[in-house]
Amino acid sequence: MEKLLTKIKSPEDLKRLQESDLPLLADEIRKLLIDTLSVNGGHLASNLGVVELTIALHRVFESPRDAIVWDVGHQSYIHKLLTGRYDRFSSIRTPGGLSGFTRTSESEHDFFNSGHSSTALSAAFGLSQANRIKNKESYTVAVVGDGAFTGGMVYEALNNAGRSDSRLIVILNDNEMSISPNVGALARYFAAIRANPRYVKFKAGTERVLMNIPLVGKPLAKAVYNLKTNIKNLIYNSTMFEDLGFRYIGPIDGHNIDQLITALQAAKSMNIPVVLHINTVKGKGFEQAEKSPEVFHGISRFDPITGEPPVSGKSFSGVFGDFMVQTAKIDPNICAVTAAMSAGTGLSAFSSAYPERFFDAGIAEEHATTFCSGLAKGGMLPVFAVYSSFFQRSYDQIIHDAAMQELKMVFAVDRAGFVGEDGMSHQGIFDAAFLNTVPGVTVFCPAYYCELEAFMQKALYETDGAAVVRYPRGKEPALPMDYQPSMTSFDFYGQANADVLLVTYGRIFSQCASAATVLSKQDIHCAVLKLNVIKPIDEKALQAALKMKNIFFFEEGQRHGGIGESFATMLLENGYGGNFNLTAVDDEFPIHDSVDSQLHKYKLDTAGMVQTVAEVLNNG
Amino acid sequence: MEKLLTKIKSPEDLKRLQESDLPLLADEIRKLLIDTLSVNGGHLASNLGVVELTIALHRVFESPRDAIVWDVGHQSYIHKLLTGRYDRFSSIRTPGGLSGFTRTSESEHDFFNSGHSSTALSAAFGLSQANRIKNKESYTVAVVGDGAFTGGMVYEALNNAGRSDSRLIVILNDNEMSISPNVGALARYFAAIRANPRYVKFKAGTERVLMNIPLVGKPLAKAVYNLKTNIKNLIYNSTMFEDLGFRYIGPIDGHNIDQLITALQAAKSMNIPVVLHINTVKGKGFEQAEKSPEVFHGISRFDPITGEPPVSGKSFSGVFGDFMVQTAKIDPNICAVTAAMSAGTGLSAFSSAYPERFFDAGIAEEHATTFCSGLAKGGMLPVFAVYSSFFQRSYDQIIHDAAMQELKMVFAVDRAGFVGEDGMSHQGIFDAAFLNTVPGVTVFCPAYYCELEAFMQKALYETDGAAVVRYPRGKEPALPMDYQPSMTSFDFYGQANADVLLVTYGRIFSQCASAATVLSKQDIHCAVLKLNVIKPIDEKALQAALKMKNIFFFEEGQRHGGIGESFATMLLENGYGGNFNLTAVDDEFPIHDSVDSQLHKYKLDTAGMVQTVAEVLNNG
Repeated sequence: MEKLLTKIKSPEDLKRLQESDLPLLADEIRKLLIDTLSVNGGHLASNLGVVELTIALHRVFESPRDAIVWDVGHQSYIHKLLTGRYDRFSSIRTPGGLSGFTRTSESEHDFFNSGHSSTALSAAFGLSQANRIKNKESYTVAVVGDGAFTGGMVYEALNNAGRSDSRLIVILNDNEMSISPNVGALARYFAAIRANPRYVKFKAGTERVLMNIPLVGKPLAKAVYNLKTNIKNLIYNSTMFEDLGFRYIGPIDGHNIDQLITALQAAKSMNIPVVLHINTVKGKGFEQAEKSPEVFHGISRFDPITGEPPVSGKSFSGVFGDFMVQTAKIDPNICAVTAAMSAGTGLSAFSSAYPERFFDAGIAEEHATTFCSGLAKGGMLPVFAVYSSFFQRSYDQIIHDAAMQELKMVFAVDRAGFVGEDGMSHQGIFDAAFLNTVPGVTVFCPAYYCELEAFMQKALYETDGAAVVRYPRGKEPALPMDYQPSMTSFDFYGQANADVLLVTYGRIFSQCASAATVLSKQDIHCAVLKLNVIKPIDEKALQAALKMKNIFFFEEGQRHGGIGESFATMLLENGYGGNFNLTAVDDEFPIHDSVDSQLHKYKLDTAGMVQTVAEVLNNG
Repeated sequence: MEKLLTKIKSPEDLKRLQESDLPLLADEIRKLLIDTLSVNGGHLASNLGVVELTIALHRVFESPRDAIVWDVGHQSYIHKLLTGRYDRFSSIRTPGGLSGFTRTSESEHDFFNSGHSSTALSAAFGLSQANRIKNKESYTVAVVGDGAFTGGMVYEALNNAGRSDSRLIVILNDNEMSISPNVGALARYFAAIRANPRYVKFKAGTERVLMNIPLVGKPLAKAVYNLKTNIKNLIYNSTMFEDLGFRYIGPIDGHNIDQLITALQAAKSMNIPVVLHINTVKGKGFEQAEKSPEVFHGISRFDPITGEPPVSGKSFSGVFGDFMVQTAKIDPNICAVTAAMSAGTGLSAFSSAYPERFFDAGIAEEHATTFCSGLAKGGMLPVFAVYSSFFQRSYDQIIHDAAMQELKMVFAVDRAGFVGEDGMSHQGIFDAAFLNTVPGVTVFCPAYYCELEAFMQKALYETDGAAVVRYPRGKEPALPMDYQPSMTSFDFYGQANADVLLVTYGRIFSQCASAATVLSKQDIHCAVLKLNVIKPIDEKALQAALKMKNIFFFEEGQRHGGIGESFATMLLENGYGGNFNLTAVDDEFPIHDSVDSQLHKYKLDTAGMVQTVAEVLNNG
């Protein structure tokens, strides 16, 4: 039982604790995080890294009067614990339980529904400007990880927010870089001076003094030169933030609560936009997570003692990754591009085998897409592997820099369809619809591993222009017993005497096939049309459908603008006079749940399909 | 007659000119630009600013072996003149003539189909990496304006490209800032040293020397402090580019051909990614354009002597702008947001009247959208005015940061539908379709000024959540004689005895009404259903449509995913058994032309509608 946490029903309770109790509180939180997430899964490493920061934030600021805006929101678990949700914490990421991201409906302390990266500063700056106009003396704090600085929106927001009349504090949570002890000491020296409220007054003088210490410039410059990424250089070159009109404090130790509180209070006293740069360790306090933070970034379940995750086996991502390695071996033009999702999209092996042809663009889907166009223009065959939900960011680039250029490239869209526990911001339910609007793009939709391989091959070598292969998170469903994938643009499955047609695409074909079997026992004889290419829809598939008296379309995605509506329109324009029924996500954001429950809720599983068909036909 | 230009059929011809002839060539080009654009319209100021740069680029590099990638592409007119398109230059921006942007179908010297901002570096880096992999010794040059640096994609690309093994040269074309003569001289001193090829070797030494000149640091720092924008500070703080892994040269005088050639040759010799920073003057050489570069940025026609544009009168943008000023007077919560399109969207008066509530986000539609969410969260009522084509950039933010937050904000989408001369990258033919996919958004589509005002009012005060009001470029069409706008979600117009229904939305309703009149003379009796709210579609509008035997839907936008398909699906699901026909842009990118010709080409004018209806009914 957590002694201190049980007392904290709100940030006010946290403020009542003795300062000396805070490290103990941090320990309690870490233990609870490890225990809960070993069962529920979640973003363990990121949350272990911000335990002290979150405590310090809620000691110094007055949430919700002061807003704390968590970028991405995956690191907001401790924030949840300290804002009245300790009692429900064991439910995190489970159906009906707490979300794994901030949710405004959960608490007044959650400023935004979060999930996507690099947006917090834009939202926070908006709020701070509203507060300025309304003469509210509230602070707005945006907590942004260094990874988010590879996304361009952060610079757009920095440019706007800098030198503005805002009570805006940006916490740059820098958790990947190990700075050498020597330079670290120096940095702490800077930090100590800068975080002192008097620094504001004496800034000019202080800086002149520091500039004149000849030993300071060189070692720092040298350390910076050895860093791995360009963004790190930019961040550690503190003049960027000052140039953009922010006061810069840091870097300071993000696991030292006292230092954090001092720095936050200093930031608060400045009344101009401030960047507070802190260094934290991902996975802090859990040895296995500190060693392999990427494994514990977003983890499903694991052993709380050994840190071992359950064996997961084959997945669509893995099959895609293997395909890429095999294909790159044969074809020297194949390139793989990811937007900071190398492991998640299955590209780790490729990145080791073909480092010359592997590109990690950072959390920068816009750039990644246009970069592929450049590669294609230079004669390469680029494959950009990206999660469906994040691919939304590339919409304009897909239109303007891919489709409009008529260049050959492939988008491997992972996590298409429901994604389960990650919830509303991560559902892959828009890609079919938004890709439907893009001229000249061909969209393949495999339901099984063998189809993924076959359609990747077709997309790469038998399709003109930009092609998309979209597939779901996780594992392939069971192949219906008497179904043999044709690997062509559509498949027919089912009874010869059918006058009911079920149309679908992707993994729910398996559910559809089962529904047909169940319905046949109710004397409703169904065939199933499985669309393998959802854009453009094959005219032959349509012709076959026109003969059927009743058509039910099942779509694991948004209804409006989706494939079902295109199919219905083609039917109607071709004089179809039968019944048509479309089941899809209808103008909603599905919340976190298991994928099975999500399919069930939206009537896209076998039971739902059977119910819909039976109801309509029995009432018709 | 241009003496030198007539001789230039290719960059090779340019290279054959005497160096001493180049200023004369620049004069010829300027005169031709002014004369041609005074008739055809176009991006005058930007092109006048890059005359010397373009000459220098084609003297130093070997296009098309070396690729010159023009960001946005609106400044590529001189490039066109020097790459074999002088003979056709008088056709620029006219139907069938040269495009006002780069077009790969026009010339092998055009690397990309361009139009949108901040993409060139991503594409150029892609090409340079392809060249690396293929061991091609080609250079890639990206020409990027300082305005594009307010767009985040540039930083995403810089982060990726820096320190890479690339023959990549970024020309930062800085054309807005007037640096003081004193600092300018100093900057030229830097530039001279840095552009010298020997600088590469002696860089470390040189820099130490410069650092030790006590007078250097201070005046420069002071000048920088007085600059208007944060981006300027960032850019002039050359360490940003060095931190991101680029060699930095500049700033140098972008109107001095000799200096440019020297600097480009230096950049070429370095064999690592280089940023060459040049200062140019927008409108250089045409007094009126130098004085008012914003007027001559994209201009329609003007008097080549006085610079006077024709009087343009009222437009949708102007009516919107007036509405905003009036509404802000009454409602202190109203804020206006633009993405670098203050004048174009009609917000100039608002920005003067309510500077405290006016926000220019830069060329940063992503940030602007999320920023609006922050404003809304703080109790303001933000209106983001944005061109349809650029709004595509916000697709993920519309989903994630607007709709998912269930906050009240309004998007005023200008230039919806065909935009005419600007061509394929600028058509506003996607917004209806992509907004159709977003849960909970209400989309209004006024056809007339009075409707724009009424629907803005409804969007602001009678609609929950995010609302969109979309309207076309330019002026309202003529109101059909016997039509009285209802200002509700749909209107019926036409004959009582009709059994043909024409359905449409937006400005082409006027064409539709005319078509009904023409058809009535052929004994085809039509009613017209005008959708004022295109998402969600009013159930009552649908019920009325269900009674009609023949339905024709006309949509000035993409067919797939559009409103016509949603309407057709609703008809079919409700048992509609009549004929349905949808006319829209079918998976195409319409090229530049007049709006009237575009409507005609896609059969969305009166003649096209009459033809479609008559043909279908006479064959049916």
